[in-house]
Amino acid sequence: MDRLMEKRAPLRTAEVIAVGSELLGTTRLDTNSLYLSGRLGSLGIRLKAKSVVGDDRRELARMLRAALERVDLVVLSGGLGPTDDDVTRDAVADVLELPMAEDAAIVERIRARFVKRGLRMPEVNRKQAMVPRGATVLHNPMGSAPGLMIEHRRNLVLLLPGPPRELQAMFEGLANGPLKERAGNERLFQAVLYVTGQSESHVEEVAQPLYSRWRDAVPAIETTILAAPGQVELHLSMLSDDSDRAARLLADARTELAIALGPDVFSTDGRPMEEIVGGLLARRRWTIGVAESCTGGLLQSRLTDVPGSSAWVTGGIVAYSNALKWLFADVAAALIEEHGAVSEPVAVALAEGIRARAGSHIGVGITGIAGPSGGTEAKPVGTVAIAVAGPEGPAHVRTFWFLGNRTQVKFNATQAALDMVRRMLL
Amino acid sequence: MDRLMEKRAPLRTAEVIAVGSELLGTTRLDTNSLYLSGRLGSLGIRLKAKSVVGDDRRELARMLRAALERVDLVVLSGGLGPTDDDVTRDAVADVLELPMAEDAAIVERIRARFVKRGLRMPEVNRKQAMVPRGATVLHNPMGSAPGLMIEHRRNLVLLLPGPPRELQAMFEGLANGPLKERAGNERLFQAVLYVTGQSESHVEEVAQPLYSRWRDAVPAIETTILAAPGQVELHLSMLSDDSDRAARLLADARTELAIALGPDVFSTDGRPMEEIVGGLLARRRWTIGVAESCTGGLLQSRLTDVPGSSAWVTGGIVAYSNALKWLFADVAAALIEEHGAVSEPVAVALAEGIRARAGSHIGVGITGIAGPSGGTEAKPVGTVAIAVAGPEGPAHVRTFWFLGNRTQVKFNATQAALDMVRRMLL
Repeated sequence: MDRLMEKRAPLRTAEVIAVGSELLGTTRLDTNSLYLSGRLGSLGIRLKAKSVVGDDRRELARMLRAALERVDLVVLSGGLGPTDDDVTRDAVADVLELPMAEDAAIVERIRARFVKRGLRMPEVNRKQAMVPRGATVLHNPMGSAPGLMIEHRRNLVLLLPGPPRELQAMFEGLANGPLKERAGNERLFQAVLYVTGQSESHVEEVAQPLYSRWRDAVPAIETTILAAPGQVELHLSMLSDDSDRAARLLADARTELAIALGPDVFSTDGRPMEEIVGGLLARRRWTIGVAESCTGGLLQSRLTDVPGSSAWVTGGIVAYSNALKWLFADVAAALIEEHGAVSEPVAVALAEGIRARAGSHIGVGITGIAGPSGGTEAKPVGTVAIAVAGPEGPAHVRTFWFLGNRTQVKFNATQAALDMVRRMLL
Repeated sequence: MDRLMEKRAPLRTAEVIAVGSELLGTTRLDTNSLYLSGRLGSLGIRLKAKSVVGDDRRELARMLRAALERVDLVVLSGGLGPTDDDVTRDAVADVLELPMAEDAAIVERIRARFVKRGLRMPEVNRKQAMVPRGATVLHNPMGSAPGLMIEHRRNLVLLLPGPPRELQAMFEGLANGPLKERAGNERLFQAVLYVTGQSESHVEEVAQPLYSRWRDAVPAIETTILAAPGQVELHLSMLSDDSDRAARLLADARTELAIALGPDVFSTDGRPMEEIVGGLLARRRWTIGVAESCTGGLLQSRLTDVPGSSAWVTGGIVAYSNALKWLFADVAAALIEEHGAVSEPVAVALAEGIRARAGSHIGVGITGIAGPSGGTEAKPVGTVAIAVAGPEGPAHVRTFWFLGNRTQVKFNATQAALDMVRRMLL
């Protein structure tokens, strides 16, 4: 197969077609395409389009026919199961006009999987052993559905299973073998910067003069600016056949951007904010304790999403009621009465209180109004006071006014709190 | 326009094409299609496929041409801005072979938007006023890009702005006006059941005999079974021109399923678990306090995602360290030493401790190993002990062994804890 493929033109463009009626409803999105886009890009193969089609043999055939005219490589995901709903093999055989035959080795492999679990293979599973003539069978280490690879004139067609871990395991094998052989010499190289505390338009204003220059350079650096929850992301990418040079040019570009944007840049390697903060804490061997009200545990949940966080998270409290603010963080009722529960003095008292109680190096206090109700003219929904107390000097405290619904206010408040901790640790 | 459209065949099938290179990368998914799928369904228009294409006039034209052959209605989202990247108008004019002309009224509306903010309209924005001959201009109350609606032979083509709130506001206007006129008499009706504590295959085994009968009934009920984090979902849908009858048949089907599946069914109206539990607490005027270890605040964050939850959440603690388990929930070091931090007696002590301290009706204690490290042969990663203490009788306690990575173990543990609370409240 590899020998045959070497004679062909390199694969430069791809289209992904996800098969499954459930992906056309109101609840499910095809996420395999995110993985495939990145992995194809690293092979220098550009994703030109992606589609979703239901479990409908004729629709899928039409979609595939159109894709074969547009791109070199078509990757199909899903629809390889044993039931009537699984139409991918049949649709591909229709379009490429290939007869199918049962592959005895596949039948035996599937049968063995069942036997291992003390079960008999249902007859329907034989369907998964049907192979179009000339196709290469791709072993599935994670499931029963084998994949298929088919050369057809100038096109290469891949049939991969839908479950992400099966698809990814199979694709990794291809990317390191036959697909690598078939790709051109150019590869996609990428770099990323995450910025917080600035609007997308402000970031664009600063970055624009730099990246309009890069766009016209040879080789060109493509840039995308994206507003994500709590952060603005700058994505840089470059097609090149010289990996050292590409890495150097991208690193230089990233540095130029970082200098222009300053300390609002919090990540230059794709790590999310909680991991950046965790890394800074771990480096100092410091711990963090949190007393949160309106964010309701989300800050602590984000911190503890990081593997190994038990080394630097002591824990803390979710103090929704004023009684718990007193009970667990020594915030006096008189202070709350004087300033209101949502106020900078109360945020500071929460931060200092939890720091003392938990015996942590850093204490964080958050109090605010997540909405939709509870806002006033003076303190509208989205008002959040955040304090960070450390071993030295007075606590840092700031009041924010976040936009959005309840979950957005919660998330943005945790992002702002993490950023305040990050800046204290720098 | 409406008069013209009445003469035409009803719209039965649709395809959605999202335009934007950023939607082909590794970070962004087109979510407008989820909204559109539901809204089209409610008009009885079936989404047959959906696609994403970059900011590439020729690619988009090819994609559109193929879609026009497959379906009645093509909905394009995005690419209506003023920059060179915005190619949707041009591509549509290419494919439908329509000349474009500047619409003076649109220019004035856009200019007025700028003037209102004390700005001059940049000349590039004139591009947004280009209208293909015969197109109906759709007002955009939320942004500067107007939408377009074009009749073309048997097809209807909609050009909508990409930002979700702009797209949705515009589509709602269409769905209540011209699209409603053009749709057939049939509408899609839907019902849903969420089940927890059972595997997808077990739910399927129970549901299969019921829904194979419905599938062959007239009108048929279509069923989909989906495994989602912490729950299995059964989606029922039916095309009908008789809304009373459809509602009755779906309600009957839902009841049959609920009886067959029993108390593992926790939601029959699409509300998530935390809202169901919140509703049960609110009805009794009870409160809940939580002491969580391995879930790191996620349970409290989920509870406080529910608007109005301050009425029934007192708050609680995130006790990552053993010291905090003692300090905030009176869990004795000797108990931890005897049974280990991850054990049923410690879960019970956390539940009872936080219940007493927080003065809540219900106390929840969670302790476990989220991974990736920290597991042992006796207590592997994914081992989680959960206890729920109420005003009467001893605490309920169970040990679970969850599969998956750290965030999956965290989520599944919170789902199991909420379900234990739900069962206590029933």
